[in-house]
Amino acid sequence: MDSSLTVDQVRLTPILIADPPLLNTQGVHQPFTPRLIVEVITQGGVVGLGETYGDGKYLELARPLAEALPGHRITDVNGLFALADEVCGESHRTESNVDAGGLRGAQTLDKLRLSVVSAFEVAFLDALGKHRGEPVHSLLGGKVRDAVDYSAYLFYRWAQHPAGAHPAGLGVEDEWGAALDPAGVVAQARRFADTYGFRSFKLKGGVFAPDEEIAAIRALAEEFPGQPLRLDPNGAWSVPTSLYVAEQLAGVLEYLEDPATGTDLMAQVSAGTSVPLATNMCVTAVPEIAEAFARDAVQVVLSDHHYWGGLRRTQELAAICRAFGVGLSMHSNTHLGISLAAMTHVAATVPNLDYACDSHYPWQTEDVITVRHTFEDGRLAVSDAPGLGVELDRDALAALHRRWAEDDGTMRERDDAAAMRKAHPEWVRPALPRW
Amino acid sequence: MDSSLTVDQVRLTPILIADPPLLNTQGVHQPFTPRLIVEVITQGGVVGLGETYGDGKYLELARPLAEALPGHRITDVNGLFALADEVCGESHRTESNVDAGGLRGAQTLDKLRLSVVSAFEVAFLDALGKHRGEPVHSLLGGKVRDAVDYSAYLFYRWAQHPAGAHPAGLGVEDEWGAALDPAGVVAQARRFADTYGFRSFKLKGGVFAPDEEIAAIRALAEEFPGQPLRLDPNGAWSVPTSLYVAEQLAGVLEYLEDPATGTDLMAQVSAGTSVPLATNMCVTAVPEIAEAFARDAVQVVLSDHHYWGGLRRTQELAAICRAFGVGLSMHSNTHLGISLAAMTHVAATVPNLDYACDSHYPWQTEDVITVRHTFEDGRLAVSDAPGLGVELDRDALAALHRRWAEDDGTMRERDDAAAMRKAHPEWVRPALPRW
Repeated sequence: MDSSLTVDQVRLTPILIADPPLLNTQGVHQPFTPRLIVEVITQGGVVGLGETYGDGKYLELARPLAEALPGHRITDVNGLFALADEVCGESHRTESNVDAGGLRGAQTLDKLRLSVVSAFEVAFLDALGKHRGEPVHSLLGGKVRDAVDYSAYLFYRWAQHPAGAHPAGLGVEDEWGAALDPAGVVAQARRFADTYGFRSFKLKGGVFAPDEEIAAIRALAEEFPGQPLRLDPNGAWSVPTSLYVAEQLAGVLEYLEDPATGTDLMAQVSAGTSVPLATNMCVTAVPEIAEAFARDAVQVVLSDHHYWGGLRRTQELAAICRAFGVGLSMHSNTHLGISLAAMTHVAATVPNLDYACDSHYPWQTEDVITVRHTFEDGRLAVSDAPGLGVELDRDALAALHRRWAEDDGTMRERDDAAAMRKAHPEWVRPALPRW
Repeated sequence: MDSSLTVDQVRLTPILIADPPLLNTQGVHQPFTPRLIVEVITQGGVVGLGETYGDGKYLELARPLAEALPGHRITDVNGLFALADEVCGESHRTESNVDAGGLRGAQTLDKLRLSVVSAFEVAFLDALGKHRGEPVHSLLGGKVRDAVDYSAYLFYRWAQHPAGAHPAGLGVEDEWGAALDPAGVVAQARRFADTYGFRSFKLKGGVFAPDEEIAAIRALAEEFPGQPLRLDPNGAWSVPTSLYVAEQLAGVLEYLEDPATGTDLMAQVSAGTSVPLATNMCVTAVPEIAEAFARDAVQVVLSDHHYWGGLRRTQELAAICRAFGVGLSMHSNTHLGISLAAMTHVAATVPNLDYACDSHYPWQTEDVITVRHTFEDGRLAVSDAPGLGVELDRDALAALHRRWAEDDGTMRERDDAAAMRKAHPEWVRPALPRW
C-alpha cells in the first residue's frame, strides 16, 4: 500500500476567534471563543485540515491522539477511533470530567472524545481527497445535490460586549446592533435574507419569557409568510410551558427545538403536540438514540459531525434516521470555514437531509481559510475541488493563535454564564427549566 | 476529476453453477443454480467484479442498469442507486413481479433492485481499489480484524441429485454422501471441522419434523461440546412449535434462526423464549427494521450485502444494529468467490460483527476466480491486495456461461420445489407453517 498516505506529523493550533454578544439561556457569548485547528500532514506532504472545539478539555484529549498518530494510515478511520479509545480513553474517565448539562445536553467523556476525533476524521478525508484529486463528498459516496440549504441563525443580542468583558479591553465590533425584541429580531432576519438569501429562520430562544419569544416568531411569520421558522430555547422550558408555546405556535413553526431537556421530558412534550420536536441536546450520541426513538421523543435529529465523530458517523446517523422515519437537520455551534466546508460535503451526500442546516458562520468575522464561504440564495455550493476545497491562511491562523497564547486564560474556556456576569454580576447559570 | 474512474463498459455474464442436492423446507437445490457475474470496466482499463443472483427477474433489472452505466463515475455510489431507481424502477413495479414468500422472506421490487445494485456497488469498489492500490476494506474505513470467522453450514442432503433432475442428465457429483439423520449431520459437521476448522455450526432445518431436528442439534452438542450451534428452519414452524423447539434447545443453541415467518409471529416467539432469534427473512430491508426492533422480534440480524444493496449499506445496517443493541451476523445463499471476498471485506470493517458468518462456499465445487478461497481454522484471512483481491478465471466463466446458454431454461430459474418434484412428483411448495 501507498506509504504517502501515512501520517507523518500532526499540528494542533488552539486559537481564539471573535464572537459577537449573542444571547442564549445560559448567558452570552464571550468576545472570543476557543477553537482547535488540526493539521494532519502525510508522508506524501499533503496537509489535511480539521476543526473542533478548543476548550481545555478538548485540547487535553487531542494532544495524546496527535502524538500517537504518526505512522497511522489516513484511510484507516476505524483504526483512528480505536486509537482514540486507547490513548484518550480510560485514563480520563473520571466523574469530575463529566458535565451534566450545558447547551450540548448531557456530556460524557465518550462525547468529548468523539468531538475531538471528528476533527481528525475530517482532516484524514481532506488529506485523502487532496491525494486522490477527489472532493470529500466523492470519498463519502458522492453528492446527491450541488448546493446545500442553510437557515438564518437569529439571535437575541446586544450591540456590543459589556465593558470589561475581556481583560485587555479588546473586542471585535460588528455593525449588526442590538436585537432584543420582535422588531429587532425581524430587522436581523431581514438583513440575513437580503444579504445571504436565507429562506428559513431559526431563533435562539430561552432568553426572554416565552410570550416575548412567541411574539418574535409571530412577527417573523408576518414578515416572511410561509417561510420555515424554528425556535430553540435550549431546554429552558418546563413541559407545560413547552406545550403552551407549541400550542401558540402550531402551524407557524417548522419545528420546535429542545423545548425541554432530556428524553423523558421531550417525550412528554411530544405526546401533547403535533409540532415536530427537533433536538441537538437529548440525542447527541448513539446510546441516546434507541430510547428517544422508541418513545417518539423527537421527530427531527440535528446532526453535527463534531458531536457524532466525523462525516462517516454523520452518514450513519442519517441512515438510522432514514430507517426509523425520523427527520434530519444539521446543528451548528460557533465554527469557522473548515467545519462549514465539512458540514457542506457531508450534507451533500445525505439523501434524507430534510431541512436547511443551521450555521453560526455569518456571525464569524474571522476565519483561518484564504477564501471565505459565501451564501447565495441561502445556499452554499458544494465544492468539487480536491479534499474539503479550502486552504489554510497561515497568517490568520498565526494571529488567532497569538491571541490564544497571550490570553490570560479567561477566554480559553467558553463560559457563557461568566461572560454574562460582566454585565450582570449576580448572574448564575440558570437551573433548567427557567420557565 | 480523474476520467479514468469513469465507467467505459459493463459486461453481464449469467452462468449456471453446480450445486449439491441440499434440502430445505421448500425443496432441494437444483443440480445447477443461476448466478450473474458483473464486470465494470473503467476508462482507465480496470475491471471491477461483482456477483449476484442470476434468475431472470434479476437479469431483467441488471440489463438496463448496465446499459445506463457508461459515463458514470465509480466513486459515485449515491448516483448508482439513483440511476437504478430511474432505469429499473417504476416500469417494473407490477404486483405480478412480487413474490410474497420464499427463503428470502417477502420480496418486493425494491429488494430485487437492491440485490442487483449490490453487484454493481461491489464492482465499483473492486475497480476503485484496483485503481488506488487499496483493498476494499480500506475504502470502507479500514479492517478492524485480520481474519473473519465463518461457521459450518450443515444441510440435510441426498448423496446425489435424483435421476432426471437435469434434462441433459448432467450433474456434478461430490463425495459428501447423504445426511438425513443425526448421525449423518454429525458426520458432515465433523468433516467440516476437520477440513476447514469451523468452530460453529448452523443446520438448515425445516426439512424433517421438529423432534428429528432437535435430536440432530443435540447430537451436534454432544460431539462439539460448548461450540456455538444454530438451527434455521426458514419459517417452517408455527409459534407453538417454535416455542417448543426453543424450550427443548434452550442453553444449547447460540440462536434460533427464523423459526416462524414475519415480524408478528417472530415477536410472539421472542416474547416466549430467552433463546435469541436471528433473521434473514423478517428483516431484509430498511423498511422492515423499525417495527421488528420496536417489538423485539429479533435479537440478531443476518446481514447480506446482496439483500441490502452492497457493502456500504451493510455497514449502515451494522450501525443501526449497534445503535439498537441488536446483534449482527451474516447470511449466505449459494454464491461464488467474488461474493465471498466482498462479504469478507465488509465483515472485516464491522466492529459489531458478533457471530461467525454463514457461507455456502464449501458446497460449491466450481468458481469463476483463479484461486479459490481457503478456510483455515474456520476463518478467512482478509486480503490486503488491491480491490477485492480476486481475479477472474475467464475460461471458467466462459464454460459456466456456456452451460447457461445451452440450458433449455429449466435451470435458469432456481426453483427448489420443482427440483424436489424430480424425486417426489407430488411435491408442492409447502404452505408455512409446515409444523
